[in-house]
Amino acid sequence: MSGTGKVILVGAGPGAPDLITVRGADALRRADAVVYDALAAKSLLDLAPPEALRIDVGKRGHDEPTRTQEETTSLLLRLAAQGLTVVRLKGGDPYVFGRGGEEASACAAAGIPFEVVPGVSSIFGALAYAGIPITDRRHGASFAVVTGHKDPTKVTRETRWDLLARAADTLLILMGMRNLAQIVDRLLESGRNPATPSRAGSKHDSASRWSTPAPCSISTGRPLPCST
Amino acid sequence: MSGTGKVILVGAGPGAPDLITVRGADALRRADAVVYDALAAKSLLDLAPPEALRIDVGKRGHDEPTRTQEETTSLLLRLAAQGLTVVRLKGGDPYVFGRGGEEASACAAAGIPFEVVPGVSSIFGALAYAGIPITDRRHGASFAVVTGHKDPTKVTRETRWDLLARAADTLLILMGMRNLAQIVDRLLESGRNPATPSRAGSKHDSASRWSTPAPCSISTGRPLPCST
Repeated sequence: MSGTGKVILVGAGPGAPDLITVRGADALRRADAVVYDALAAKSLLDLAPPEALRIDVGKRGHDEPTRTQEETTSLLLRLAAQGLTVVRLKGGDPYVFGRGGEEASACAAAGIPFEVVPGVSSIFGALAYAGIPITDRRHGASFAVVTGHKDPTKVTRETRWDLLARAADTLLILMGMRNLAQIVDRLLESGRNPATPSRAGSKHDSASRWSTPAPCSISTGRPLPCST
Repeated sequence: MSGTGKVILVGAGPGAPDLITVRGADALRRADAVVYDALAAKSLLDLAPPEALRIDVGKRGHDEPTRTQEETTSLLLRLAAQGLTVVRLKGGDPYVFGRGGEEASACAAAGIPFEVVPGVSSIFGALAYAGIPITDRRHGASFAVVTGHKDPTKVTRETRWDLLARAADTLLILMGMRNLAQIVDRLLESGRNPATPSRAGSKHDSASRWSTPAPCSISTGRPLPCST
């Protein structure tokens, strides 16, 4: 099919528009269509040509539900099949908790060419601006990243708190605020050193309030006062 | 001290020069001095003004030894104290196995202003170009990153292979080639599913030979034939 375009999965980085990569910014400047959601900085859309399509897949309107991943994936394939160069702009890195893997494999299955432009993961970017190196050979040389939105009193395949408590030096828990107290209890009863520095915070906290050496336990999510 | 400059720790990203962030490239364009090593793309030095100092701390000369971390840190502080804006250009992300934490805390201790510009970690960047999402909700929702250059038959504080075997879905082992056989043995005897997809490779392998879904075990280091 001579009219086939392509899909470029671009990581927008952790929030500030100038933390996108040079390659990602260049991809936006050459886009025929940009498919974005609430996780990427809106000012990045200004990099795309004025005539480029700009499609928000984070929401449809004030009272309409968010699009499903299947709808978003179908949209990408349809636009590319029309011959367009489609930038799928995603917060952080497309392949780190970003569902980019699903979009990439859908392209592969449909025979649509695709590229991936990695981005600064919000995991590391947010920590860096909070003054926290995720590794530091003086303190910690390994880390594990897990999501904390599952019920920590249940033993699930996904989250083995009993092993995670001691498996890695730094433990980063995403979306952990709702279950924070139970997660802390599970980690401590499973042998995590209670003296491990820890910090809980959200994007609504001032980064200047964070300063914690590795190894540490970190939980991010909705606002909560910082605690040591 | 009115003449004090500053140190900007800039992550150069995983290799290709255009995978630096826009902010990192801007910092190079305004640098009075760039302190770099072998892990950052040399062509990035061209972004700095012609008159900027360019100092290679990866090696001193053909027959002289690599500088120690202490020498590099002292150099950064000395240049900034002279009033220069010093970019410390580091491969990947400054705070991910990059010793950026040591350089940042030395600046803080010396009263030298510093900034951190995160970069695309080589961990994620290399995997993305190898076709491997480190997470994919269809297969894996957590990951752990460890170094594999320690002797895996010894139980060290740093590397708890017995726990890591089952703690996280995707396990990424850096610098693991030398001890690969022993690491695999330790992981399997500690309960890692032998059916877990795995891939071993190095920067000398063609990325196109890699294609592995999460969860998986990955080891990178010096060249070795890929195996499933």
